[in-house]
Amino acid sequence: MPQFRQSFITKEWVIIAPERAKRPDQFGKKSANNIEKPPHDPKCPFCTGNEAMTPLESFAIKKDGKWSLRVVPNKFAAVNSELSPSRQQEGLFLSTQGFGIAEVVIEHTRHDTTLALMSNSEIVDVLRSYKNRYATLEKDGNIDMITVFRNHGLKAGTSIEHPHSQIIATPIVPPQVRHLMQQMVIYHDTYGRCSYCDLMAEELRQKQRILMETERYVALCPYASHVPFETIIVPKRHYSHFSGIEENELVEMAEVLRIILKKLYCGLNDPDYNYVLRTSPTSDGELHYDHWRLSITPRTTTAAGFEIGSGIFINVMPPETAAEFLRGVKAD
Amino acid sequence: MPQFRQSFITKEWVIIAPERAKRPDQFGKKSANNIEKPPHDPKCPFCTGNEAMTPLESFAIKKDGKWSLRVVPNKFAAVNSELSPSRQQEGLFLSTQGFGIAEVVIEHTRHDTTLALMSNSEIVDVLRSYKNRYATLEKDGNIDMITVFRNHGLKAGTSIEHPHSQIIATPIVPPQVRHLMQQMVIYHDTYGRCSYCDLMAEELRQKQRILMETERYVALCPYASHVPFETIIVPKRHYSHFSGIEENELVEMAEVLRIILKKLYCGLNDPDYNYVLRTSPTSDGELHYDHWRLSITPRTTTAAGFEIGSGIFINVMPPETAAEFLRGVKAD
Repeated sequence: MPQFRQSFITKEWVIIAPERAKRPDQFGKKSANNIEKPPHDPKCPFCTGNEAMTPLESFAIKKDGKWSLRVVPNKFAAVNSELSPSRQQEGLFLSTQGFGIAEVVIEHTRHDTTLALMSNSEIVDVLRSYKNRYATLEKDGNIDMITVFRNHGLKAGTSIEHPHSQIIATPIVPPQVRHLMQQMVIYHDTYGRCSYCDLMAEELRQKQRILMETERYVALCPYASHVPFETIIVPKRHYSHFSGIEENELVEMAEVLRIILKKLYCGLNDPDYNYVLRTSPTSDGELHYDHWRLSITPRTTTAAGFEIGSGIFINVMPPETAAEFLRGVKAD
Repeated sequence: MPQFRQSFITKEWVIIAPERAKRPDQFGKKSANNIEKPPHDPKCPFCTGNEAMTPLESFAIKKDGKWSLRVVPNKFAAVNSELSPSRQQEGLFLSTQGFGIAEVVIEHTRHDTTLALMSNSEIVDVLRSYKNRYATLEKDGNIDMITVFRNHGLKAGTSIEHPHSQIIATPIVPPQVRHLMQQMVIYHDTYGRCSYCDLMAEELRQKQRILMETERYVALCPYASHVPFETIIVPKRHYSHFSGIEENELVEMAEVLRIILKKLYCGLNDPDYNYVLRTSPTSDGELHYDHWRLSITPRTTTAAGFEIGSGIFINVMPPETAAEFLRGVKAD
């Protein structure tokens, strides 16, 4: 049985999930993204014709009577919706059963594509599925936070190569998220403004780390980037929950996301990366001090002992250089 | 020129160090620790006879007129002792030059050994070098924190295979360290006791995660381990600065460290790992609420988008199972 566990010292939570050790590792034989993949893999649980290999879908987009995108419960999830979310104390140690909801967004019928190569409208569908699942999952009173993320490539922790994202809804808001929010609430209480709104204005003024600016979004390499080519996409309109995104904003976001991912794909030869949608906890209402954004973390380097010990990352690539390079990569 | 940069949002610091991009990557051709290494590599800057390839040593242990351990400035350091530690503000962004001191502990004359295979007295020398450098570096009024760590293997971020540890002294205490200390100070202010002292007592009572107990130390797999086989070694005596370690404590620590590393080496076929000495900031005096310890992080798994987004690690190995397994591995 999986379990959330809270560190007695740091108050950080982990999920203890022994079941996941049996997860099939589709990348075992391969070592790079650019190994040729077939458009259809008869053994892939996410390929067309293999729908019975996954649980029943919670959301789907259909075209001409066939699915083009499916969201299904994660069969190898670290969390389980049938467990209890209540905390338990044993001696000094706090735990809760591994309650949660984990889903997989199967982004495309093709096995051999990836988000960077999809069309705007296909990426709109991916973002639409995130919004739809958010809206449904956040109604669950036991869910406090929903993390939407994408692991691309072996170094980013992918175990299945068919293009997909993941959604994990948990009954916990972890300290990492709260620490960040604390900084943002202090800033708001001090200056009366959102820190991301001010950050965007400052970056647009300084210009050198901006990747692109559209009517509704800014994409940039953060001033204190942890890793080479770290990128965030921030909506100009202030709102803290991604689920508040409107249709025209969704469409424009898809185009920005596609262009940024394609720049990374073309400029860095399809690098491994993670992206995470950072949005307010579902248990909090709309927050003046929080502002959703999507952060992309290319995995071209390895964090070592110094990073683990201090949290200070050593980044060999100034974000100004990264931004200049990526601005120059064609991605239309 | 390298630079510390503080994230405007999170207050986390990074070092922007473009110079390190040129660092030689000795592991480029190899992929595993168990590839046979020569006892002496004429091209290795840390091998005997190549002393001129490194800067002058800051500490050394000699036997029969020859060195057996050397501490030298890191030639490819992300920080530089000739820069200024003063903070600078540009618009919203805070920075300081990359002031700091980075050293390498060349642990042994042999190229083909590792800490797990060394003798107790050789490991005593390694710990002695840490203590000696701490004592010297903490006198620098611009240094606030000293991180001692060891990267073993490619997945742990090693770029040189000759056995070595690293010391990085910085003018910054990062939020990751302060957040943890805040938890410990709250606990101390609430209960009047050190949280690590209480943790040890509880773990000794529950027994199942204990790896070994000696007169002066406890080694255990933490209740909320982030990764499989995560291990900490904690001194039973309460003191917050590693530099306060006494001679008999140093000798016993070396034996405990050797046994734990040998258990990992034999049990997990020489896994990649990082270890970090977690000790109070040098700018703080002795602290009732802090307690030094050494934490070992085997790198057998990959953190993915969920870990990045939430800080919640998914760990496939319960620490009780890890501890039971490692207790059973012979390491004498």
